[in-house]
Amino acid sequence: MKSAFKTVALIGKYMSPEIREPMLALADFMAERQIHVLVEEQTAEQLDIKGYTTVHIKDIGATADLAVVLGGDGTMLTVARALMHSSIPLVGVNRGRFGFLTDLSSESMLESMGHILTGKFNIEQRMLLSATIFRDGKVLNEDSALNDVVVSKGATARLIELEISIDGQFVHRQRSDGLIVATPTGTTAYALSAGGPILHPGLEAIALVPICPHTLSNRPIAINSASKVEITLTESGDSCVLFDGHQSTALVQGDKVLVQRAQKMVSLLHPLEHSHFAMLREKLHWG
Amino acid sequence: MKSAFKTVALIGKYMSPEIREPMLALADFMAERQIHVLVEEQTAEQLDIKGYTTVHIKDIGATADLAVVLGGDGTMLTVARALMHSSIPLVGVNRGRFGFLTDLSSESMLESMGHILTGKFNIEQRMLLSATIFRDGKVLNEDSALNDVVVSKGATARLIELEISIDGQFVHRQRSDGLIVATPTGTTAYALSAGGPILHPGLEAIALVPICPHTLSNRPIAINSASKVEITLTESGDSCVLFDGHQSTALVQGDKVLVQRAQKMVSLLHPLEHSHFAMLREKLHWG
Amino acid sequence: MKSAFKTVALIGKYMSPEIREPMLALADFMAERQIHVLVEEQTAEQLDIKGYTTVHIKDIGATADLAVVLGGDGTMLTVARALMHSSIPLVGVNRGRFGFLTDLSSESMLESMGHILTGKFNIEQRMLLSATIFRDGKVLNEDSALNDVVVSKGATARLIELEISIDGQFVHRQRSDGLIVATPTGTTAYALSAGGPILHPGLEAIALVPICPHTLSNRPIAINSASKVEITLTESGDSCVLFDGHQSTALVQGDKVLVQRAQKMVSLLHPLEHSHFAMLREKLHWG
Amino acid sequence: MKSAFKTVALIGKYMSPEIREPMLALADFMAERQIHVLVEEQTAEQLDIKGYTTVHIKDIGATADLAVVLGGDGTMLTVARALMHSSIPLVGVNRGRFGFLTDLSSESMLESMGHILTGKFNIEQRMLLSATIFRDGKVLNEDSALNDVVVSKGATARLIELEISIDGQFVHRQRSDGLIVATPTGTTAYALSAGGPILHPGLEAIALVPICPHTLSNRPIAINSASKVEITLTESGDSCVLFDGHQSTALVQGDKVLVQRAQKMVSLLHPLEHSHFAMLREKLHWG
Repeated sequence: MKSAFKTVALIGKYMSPEIREPMLALADFMAERQIHVLVEEQTAEQLDIKGYTTVHIKDIGATADLAVVLGGDGTMLTVARALMHSSIPLVGVNRGRFGFLTDLSSESMLESMGHILTGKFNIEQRMLLSATIFRDGKVLNEDSALNDVVVSKGATARLIELEISIDGQFVHRQRSDGLIVATPTGTTAYALSAGGPILHPGLEAIALVPICPHTLSNRPIAINSASKVEITLTESGDSCVLFDGHQSTALVQGDKVLVQRAQKMVSLLHPLEHSHFAMLREKLHWG
Repeated sequence: MKSAFKTVALIGKYMSPEIREPMLALADFMAERQIHVLVEEQTAEQLDIKGYTTVHIKDIGATADLAVVLGGDGTMLTVARALMHSSIPLVGVNRGRFGFLTDLSSESMLESMGHILTGKFNIEQRMLLSATIFRDGKVLNEDSALNDVVVSKGATARLIELEISIDGQFVHRQRSDGLIVATPTGTTAYALSAGGPILHPGLEAIALVPICPHTLSNRPIAINSASKVEITLTESGDSCVLFDGHQSTALVQGDKVLVQRAQKMVSLLHPLEHSHFAMLREKLHWG
Repeated sequence: MKSAFKTVALIGKYMSPEIREPMLALADFMAERQIHVLVEEQTAEQLDIKGYTTVHIKDIGATADLAVVLGGDGTMLTVARALMHSSIPLVGVNRGRFGFLTDLSSESMLESMGHILTGKFNIEQRMLLSATIFRDGKVLNEDSALNDVVVSKGATARLIELEISIDGQFVHRQRSDGLIVATPTGTTAYALSAGGPILHPGLEAIALVPICPHTLSNRPIAINSASKVEITLTESGDSCVLFDGHQSTALVQGDKVLVQRAQKMVSLLHPLEHSHFAMLREKLHWG
Repeated sequence: MKSAFKTVALIGKYMSPEIREPMLALADFMAERQIHVLVEEQTAEQLDIKGYTTVHIKDIGATADLAVVLGGDGTMLTVARALMHSSIPLVGVNRGRFGFLTDLSSESMLESMGHILTGKFNIEQRMLLSATIFRDGKVLNEDSALNDVVVSKGATARLIELEISIDGQFVHRQRSDGLIVATPTGTTAYALSAGGPILHPGLEAIALVPICPHTLSNRPIAINSASKVEITLTESGDSCVLFDGHQSTALVQGDKVLVQRAQKMVSLLHPLEHSHFAMLREKLHWG
């Protein structure tokens, strides 16, 4: 049977020699099915994988039809951000601690991949956030996130004070350890630990989840994903902006962070039997 | 200047003699402006208001252009549900404990009403929920709610067990004191006390908030408002369904409650200076 | 080797035919070791156990040296309350859903019991609460609880209003679904679901945990176990008092509930390898 | 009438010129009553206060009978830690944002102080925590705190992993933003923002409150104040230890922090009308 994908790129978890064997198994499995296999450069080097064409991660979107990630949610996040300007679908084989984003279990990897290659899958679009940091009216930095953009106090600050506006309307001044702005995808990650709600991926929404707010009634808020969130650091203090948990930019008093939905979305490929609620049940130990 | 409304119906808080005076002031204020004033029958009787045409609450939608409520959120909820099959806008003058729904303060009531009558207002649509209770496959009851539909344990039950499905997909079995299904409007009411998030009214969403769930990871979930939520009482126990806090139907094991967005919406009239976030700041003592 | 206990009473979970076999195995195991075995009357009848002396639960304290419970935490709670006026130690074999109180697993029941009979165990004292309900100054009811005394709204009430005093000092008026007054033992039960902290059993404390409080800053409070807590129902509404989850008395407006530490304690017998934190790790799925 | 105190030391909030006037009023008020007034050196210099003997903060315990603080809780914390090795009582005049520790309002400062000087007050002892940081088995640092000792992730870490033991018993490994170890006094500060319970100062307890724990069942725990808490940083990551919110020591993987009750206590002087619950009602906007 002909594969639904002609060229597949394989990407592995950073510095994880234990995935060499499954990575090779996967590559061979595909090659046997006349699929052109590309291995991401850094992965090939770290795992010492030879005999397959290598590709820089930035070129995967232009050269492959499908990106397969062996790793955990962290790897998926990194790859999703790297490929967000293409429309290539992503699928993950869970090799990490969790796996809200990595649908395939490593045990049944080849079987599941077989189904996917014969066209048995669904594609789901997930929104990303885009944030721009302004200092003195000038753009200091901008980046994107699949899970969350976080304005966080640093190690030496006791707490920070943020002023939050939504679509130009003043919401409040908040004294807290920080603020998580999360996509529905991100609501099962850091935002959940901070007391936020779970937003279904089918909901066009953004969650604003304060981290240890001084005022106990500063509860998490969910707003329409078309809204623009503006966060101003109103009180000096060691703080920074993080994109999917990666530190980006240290902030100083008066800096503004404008967060809004990114124009691009990420395509996640799910096996037919995938159920979002089944995943939540398993990962959150419901019942 | 001509009024934006020809006929206005006035409705007062149940059994509240202290609103007689402001009610009369309001009626006179309107009559002076050549507005046809209707007073809701029960209100007129309880407050001994004479000289104005009375109207049954069910007929207000067909006979008036605007319904003005003097009371608290409880009165607004009752009126909203009674008038939901019409499209008449509602505005509230706050006479109760809170007032997430009653925009006008009683202090500046006449001044604010003057602005509204000259057309200075915005209309906002708010969604309602509709729920049908099934026993042995037959409809036992159905009703609507502007805030929330709650499946709740009764006084003698320790906890209840519910099975929850969304759009036909099994979510989980939950052992808890109950489950709140809330509109965005309802997320600042009971759902907030139970640990739920605040959903902005502009978000087309429904919140599912468990009440004291046995499993601590049973966090609140927000889903698309087009979804259908099915709740089955899987373990016998004293329990019931409440609509906006009013008890409706006692449940027995096996009963199903189907909750979905109502086809009709409620029109809330806001003065121009109304801000949802300003209201949250005030009511929740932010900052 | 001689047993540390001469007479052991066996008590089974209510209406649970599946425990007949382990119950008989346990009785035989003890009889073989020259221990006088008593079987609680209701247990003997429900499980059709013959050949052993039966004993009314109220007489176990006076006739046996050790009470062994086959069941879950619910059975342990019931037995603990029934035997609280004696000083007989209790040990539980877990046959229920949870088992914060039932240390022995059913798999290794006989082996564990063998160790206990040879004196390899620790005894831990756990405090109970005692509550008296007053109406118009007269005692309406009084009872005890090992987990919690709960003042709870009933099915038809939206919420209730309670006035709380501690040692004669006014604390606050609380609008909520109710209030849980919990011993350290009870803090891993209902109180945990309501957002309360875990109090270590070695802490001489009582936790006051509001259930869905209207005011979000009404956080759980822990006080010295020597304190007296007085709860007054200040607003009429369907409500009641529960002892370890069993309904006791319906309340009317003005009723007072005085909760304080009971004079008697319960003795729990633990195998030597028992660790409170290990139990928490297992039951709460830590790590 | 003779004063209950012969020598009173006055200490002001850091860099707060607005307290010059009340500070002088207080000093004059005392001097008129034949009390020997000492002004803390830094305070005298910053406020340009002349004509009173100055004293280094470290010498206040040995030279004065009472320390009066004009400032907020932050100033009280600093002074309490500086004076903890003496037994001098402290009283605060609230000039800051909050005031869980500063009993006297600035409006009625002189009147309240008049009562105190005539002996109308109560003394309350509050416990402190002492923490020692070990690296490779050697003491790296040690310090004390009246509110809390916090092990916290820094700005660049996503989360940290801590292993927690209590009295030598393993509790769990926790992945979180950090852990707050709080005295009862500290439970109305940072620990409350992180979801911790309020421990009454009369409770001999320590609260362990995880900050945004990955595992949702990692709830706050309260233990006996005689317990020793050992925290080991098991996964490398930018993190540090803070004492009452002041950064102390950066941690590296394998570092251990041993937290236990300090041997010394702080004496807080309260006016007779002081009520802990009234203070909670006011500060937390109860009712």
